[in-house]
Amino acid sequence: MFPADELAEASRQAFRKHSATALNYGAPGGFRPLQEWLASLHGAAPGQVVIGPGSFMLLGLLVRVLAPAPRPVLVEAPSYDRMARLLRQSGTSAVPVRRGRDGIDLAGLEDYLRTGERPAFMYVMPTFHNPSGTTLPPPDRERLADLAVRYQLLLIEDDPYGLLRFEGESPASMRSLLLARGAGHLSVFTSSFSKIIAPGLRVGYAVLPESLAEPVASMAMDTYVSPPLWPQAEVYEFLAAGFLPPHLSRVRELLRLRRDALTDRLSAGLHGRAHWSTPEGGYFLWLELPDGLGAADLLADCESAGVTFVAGPGFFPAGGGENGARLSFSFPAVDDIRIGADRLVAAVRNRLAAAGAR
Amino acid sequence: MFPADELAEASRQAFRKHSATALNYGAPGGFRPLQEWLASLHGAAPGQVVIGPGSFMLLGLLVRVLAPAPRPVLVEAPSYDRMARLLRQSGTSAVPVRRGRDGIDLAGLEDYLRTGERPAFMYVMPTFHNPSGTTLPPPDRERLADLAVRYQLLLIEDDPYGLLRFEGESPASMRSLLLARGAGHLSVFTSSFSKIIAPGLRVGYAVLPESLAEPVASMAMDTYVSPPLWPQAEVYEFLAAGFLPPHLSRVRELLRLRRDALTDRLSAGLHGRAHWSTPEGGYFLWLELPDGLGAADLLADCESAGVTFVAGPGFFPAGGGENGARLSFSFPAVDDIRIGADRLVAAVRNRLAAAGAR
Repeated sequence: MFPADELAEASRQAFRKHSATALNYGAPGGFRPLQEWLASLHGAAPGQVVIGPGSFMLLGLLVRVLAPAPRPVLVEAPSYDRMARLLRQSGTSAVPVRRGRDGIDLAGLEDYLRTGERPAFMYVMPTFHNPSGTTLPPPDRERLADLAVRYQLLLIEDDPYGLLRFEGESPASMRSLLLARGAGHLSVFTSSFSKIIAPGLRVGYAVLPESLAEPVASMAMDTYVSPPLWPQAEVYEFLAAGFLPPHLSRVRELLRLRRDALTDRLSAGLHGRAHWSTPEGGYFLWLELPDGLGAADLLADCESAGVTFVAGPGFFPAGGGENGARLSFSFPAVDDIRIGADRLVAAVRNRLAAAGAR
Repeated sequence: MFPADELAEASRQAFRKHSATALNYGAPGGFRPLQEWLASLHGAAPGQVVIGPGSFMLLGLLVRVLAPAPRPVLVEAPSYDRMARLLRQSGTSAVPVRRGRDGIDLAGLEDYLRTGERPAFMYVMPTFHNPSGTTLPPPDRERLADLAVRYQLLLIEDDPYGLLRFEGESPASMRSLLLARGAGHLSVFTSSFSKIIAPGLRVGYAVLPESLAEPVASMAMDTYVSPPLWPQAEVYEFLAAGFLPPHLSRVRELLRLRRDALTDRLSAGLHGRAHWSTPEGGYFLWLELPDGLGAADLLADCESAGVTFVAGPGFFPAGGGENGARLSFSFPAVDDIRIGADRLVAAVRNRLAAAGAR
């Protein structure tokens, strides 16, 4: 799915225009024209944008700046598994907030905040959530923004998949809802070009409140001296040439076909026996297996049949998820997705039949 | 000094040959053909090479893997200022080992090791040392290797400037001396393409003992998910096309002319009044001011005259260096170096005259 020809052209332009600046060391915020492009996209000042080698690297810097142990951090359960591991390695305690089929457990979140605990931030993926593929509905977003304002809770909104929507409407970002409430100081927005151009470039970014931009930039400099400006210049020229919109159209259509292939086969084989999300974009679908059927057991069966997925527990920062499975539809071709889904269905049915026979 | 045309050609080749692999996520060791190239250069297995976004990023990972506080680390005094800050921020105590005009204080090092202390490693820049520009002479290297073996001391040898030699002979690396003693397990070698191709690419690497390769790679993955493979593929094609040797010849000659311009003006103006190193390569020269003339005061004078340098104290992990100054001859053109050096000389002489008048 990589737009290699367009990137090659963008790279030629970058050599023509930016080799004196972008091949050199530079300020930790990143390649200035790309900072400006992103600032304009997100209604921020260029100095609020820090571009680094992948958005996860920037999330790591944010954890170090904001959450030195023992200050706790709120995370959805389930949530991005790498974030849970990052917090564990930093000695930061992760307080889980349930994210289910119906959204975030906002009542539970408010109960927690009412106790007077002051977590460093809440890490949330409102759109095409990893691992569940679900999107937080607009009323939940409004209530979450209200809670953030009431309790002065910083929200780190991680949105690497938002532009990969192939159906439905995009709800307002948490950032825009916080800005509308005059609470831009409570909004961090992170995203990346990994999913919309190519991950091998490692160009991710964070849009930060002004008070955070300097400490994060300074931590970036102390960690990797200077950002990889060169791939940032290549990305900038890709955008400046207008290559992104047609490329996104192609990718969205491919992802839609792949999602359809996966959900069609699941419907054909597991209707009434399991539940799964129907993502309107992104890479992932969340499968909830029937009670008693553990994802770890199923994974073993599937892997011996040449199919893989990620079992649920890794996504739960404080336990749970034993009967959940993250299925990815981003990489394999449609035909392979059909074959893989059929094998997965067969494995589930075998397990259920065996359990029924006992 | 960037070889932009050659890099543009290398980039075209990378798009032609590697866009399927190098635009994607990849294993934390880096772009495989470059891993193999570096392994062959350093007499290592490809799996011992980890390529990441700059060698300093990899040094940071090494500190996290090897030196969780309170385990101390040995560093030269003076040494690379960013390393001292990194250790401070990690809560790691830095034990200084004097590095003077005549090399490393090996007797002091041995006294320390004899106490039974077991530091996590010693960080050393044998060649074109930052900040002093000096190179550790062969007998010191042999003795340091012997000490490392006797006390099983891991040496992290940072060598970003070694290929920028414009006169004299390259002494054996600490890595080769340790290998010759059957002590490859005590050698980490770090270097980078920042100084020999372009820093905006962020391609640095570490050659690690086998026992360290896996934990460092795993820490890399937990920190930035996947290395920036794309600029690594561009670097690889630059090397494969044979562009490095002629480019290095050009850069070395430029650096030699700049070093000459600087030392000529210092000799003309400060002969007998100050001491400075005469580097045979690299970027830096170390100026030792007369007693009583502090580098911080001189820096203030120089900056108001439009000239800058880095004052000594930042390079000393445990105090000292007040009358030292790191002068860089890497960036300005020869004419600008002459002008800058003359202003620096005038500032020193003014200070000395004022002190003499009191």
